[in-house]
Amino acid sequence: MLSSTTAKAIILSQGDEVITGALVDSNAAFLADHCRTLGFDIVRHITVADDMAELVQVLQDIDGMADVCLCTGGLGPTQDDLTTEAFSKAFNVDLVLDDVALKMMSDFFAKLNMTMAAVNHKQALLPKDSTRIDNHWGTAAGFMGLGQRCRFYFMPGVPFEMKQMMDAFVLNDLREQFNIEPSRLITFRSIGMGESDIQQAVNEMNIDPDIRISFRAGLPENELKLLFPNTYSDQQIKHYIDDIEAVMRGSVFAVDGFNQTVSGLADCVDQLMREKKQSLSVIETISQGGLAAQCHADWLVKSVVIPQRSGIMSRLDNEPLYTDESIAIKLAQKEHAKHTAELTLVQLFETDDDAGVNVYTAIMGAQYPLSSSKTVRGRPQRQQIVAAAMALNLLRKYLLGL
Amino acid sequence: MLSSTTAKAIILSQGDEVITGALVDSNAAFLADHCRTLGFDIVRHITVADDMAELVQVLQDIDGMADVCLCTGGLGPTQDDLTTEAFSKAFNVDLVLDDVALKMMSDFFAKLNMTMAAVNHKQALLPKDSTRIDNHWGTAAGFMGLGQRCRFYFMPGVPFEMKQMMDAFVLNDLREQFNIEPSRLITFRSIGMGESDIQQAVNEMNIDPDIRISFRAGLPENELKLLFPNTYSDQQIKHYIDDIEAVMRGSVFAVDGFNQTVSGLADCVDQLMREKKQSLSVIETISQGGLAAQCHADWLVKSVVIPQRSGIMSRLDNEPLYTDESIAIKLAQKEHAKHTAELTLVQLFETDDDAGVNVYTAIMGAQYPLSSSKTVRGRPQRQQIVAAAMALNLLRKYLLGL
Repeated sequence: MLSSTTAKAIILSQGDEVITGALVDSNAAFLADHCRTLGFDIVRHITVADDMAELVQVLQDIDGMADVCLCTGGLGPTQDDLTTEAFSKAFNVDLVLDDVALKMMSDFFAKLNMTMAAVNHKQALLPKDSTRIDNHWGTAAGFMGLGQRCRFYFMPGVPFEMKQMMDAFVLNDLREQFNIEPSRLITFRSIGMGESDIQQAVNEMNIDPDIRISFRAGLPENELKLLFPNTYSDQQIKHYIDDIEAVMRGSVFAVDGFNQTVSGLADCVDQLMREKKQSLSVIETISQGGLAAQCHADWLVKSVVIPQRSGIMSRLDNEPLYTDESIAIKLAQKEHAKHTAELTLVQLFETDDDAGVNVYTAIMGAQYPLSSSKTVRGRPQRQQIVAAAMALNLLRKYLLGL
Repeated sequence: MLSSTTAKAIILSQGDEVITGALVDSNAAFLADHCRTLGFDIVRHITVADDMAELVQVLQDIDGMADVCLCTGGLGPTQDDLTTEAFSKAFNVDLVLDDVALKMMSDFFAKLNMTMAAVNHKQALLPKDSTRIDNHWGTAAGFMGLGQRCRFYFMPGVPFEMKQMMDAFVLNDLREQFNIEPSRLITFRSIGMGESDIQQAVNEMNIDPDIRISFRAGLPENELKLLFPNTYSDQQIKHYIDDIEAVMRGSVFAVDGFNQTVSGLADCVDQLMREKKQSLSVIETISQGGLAAQCHADWLVKSVVIPQRSGIMSRLDNEPLYTDESIAIKLAQKEHAKHTAELTLVQLFETDDDAGVNVYTAIMGAQYPLSSSKTVRGRPQRQQIVAAAMALNLLRKYLLGL
């Protein structure tokens, strides 16, 4: 059995959208990240167009270079979906109709009350002796096929389906086929602290060189990842977690990979709202529905979205000429008196001179109000995302009594 | 002079952050998009790690496959920046100190009030006979170097610096060196028709084989793309557009690349709302703020988000026990009477037995109401996205008088 630390892996993306730059390939990063965590040495990412000759050539080249290939795209029903046929040509294996894949596909369409089109038939053709990878989340079955050296996994390009199939089949199969020396990945999910500041904070710590550090800058969340070799004990890891939370000064809202699984800030708030059995009423402005969209219908009673500043100030007695944190608190208290929900969140904004907006968030509940302010710059869409995250983060703090 | 339509291009990205998946490679999409617009045939994107042997091999491989290579990354001052040295090894050319690059770099540091570190020196070493690509935006100079066949352009991985250098040097140099024959890309943006159905419809047409057809399945929009060689006249292209719009039976909401630029359904509605000088008030349920988030604050007066079914029915006299299209119209008319905006949109839903929801949308304006119904299945997030798109699409139809 080959050890994962000496096994070479290649990520293959396929499709005109990716090769022409119409689409940024985020699948490749996702797959590489998982391969890396399992300990594989990733030697290439390759992207090819929907072109039969090129595809066949690439598959044969990869077979000469790597032990594992994770491939996305080209499994759809349309004429530009060539992956399965290319595999059959590259390794000289016939395609055979897979009855289970066909049945799953027709069931899938039936569930949507749709008739399966004739063109979908080709999606149930799989290379002889390959292993079907079931797709419970879409139409295209994937498959695992063997070259001379390389173990190829083919998955759809739709990120959601690909991720489900990784979890349900591919990761387990890799663990069974390779001698994995699993490292432990701890992810610190943070908000409100920039990537460089996190880097600076980490630089000042004494982190062992065999712990691999990486960063992922997102909007609005930033992640710091520590990959611990399997020689580290729980206690040692816990020690690092405590130290890092201390230097990241309250910006960490979740630590993933150590007794907790949280997929993001909205998920974190959802868990707290359920645990504390709370309900929420919202007035949002700059986030423009982006807050409501991240709340669960089980506890969000109502959100009133008023994007224009003029529309909201009239809700206050003696309509104020300007907005600030105290005005946001006043409005939250006034709205809370209507008893729509256990918690009332209000977010207001004032345009700043400097091409930004000052955002004021306030929460009123049974006892005391909690509020926060922040200047947000950039494109309107960015302001919308950051404002919604500010509101969620304040809600998290309120629920935790921070 | 080689024509760009027959010239092959490769996008090369270099660096551990990209290969391990710590960073999503958006440079590749940017560079590919520019190459494609110039008419090049992009045959690969390749990503390699910071590994000298791999890099040398890849550069030699690319030289055997392509006429142009756009490469980013590996030009920094640290030990893992190997690109320039790899080029010198791959094509057996010496590195020489470029005085201008050195001067520009020390000036750059001086401007920031910093002293240039010794490690930066190596960034002024360029392969003999290569052409320096000035970097006025950072420290790393780029260069253009020739292999046996391929013209290589090396740029830093920092997106901003790379983009500036593309504009200032690379694009012009490509135009001078290749006989550019840009092809014409026409994108049909559609909603309400599945990918397989579009393929089926296209199959029944007689499309010339030199027109390249591709599909992009999105949620909720699907795209059909036709790439016309530059031998096609406007009239011939128009003819194809008319035929395709006919077979796609009203599901096309925009045709991009022919006298129109639209980035999606929300953009299409935004253009119409401005053109017709309308404003909008909304009550949304299942879309949960996802509709408001896609409207522009200039014309969205208000959206009330009520995700729980119980919360909305009480707004109607004689609170009805069930919802249907007529109830949505009734509520739209009632809300419209409040004169909040020129148009009032209401979307209600009823849970279907079969793990789906029936969504009812109605719009009321100056004269008559318009409404639609649809069953939506799948995960809650999917229902949210599809419901918001249904509402936008009905708004589009209302504005166009369809």
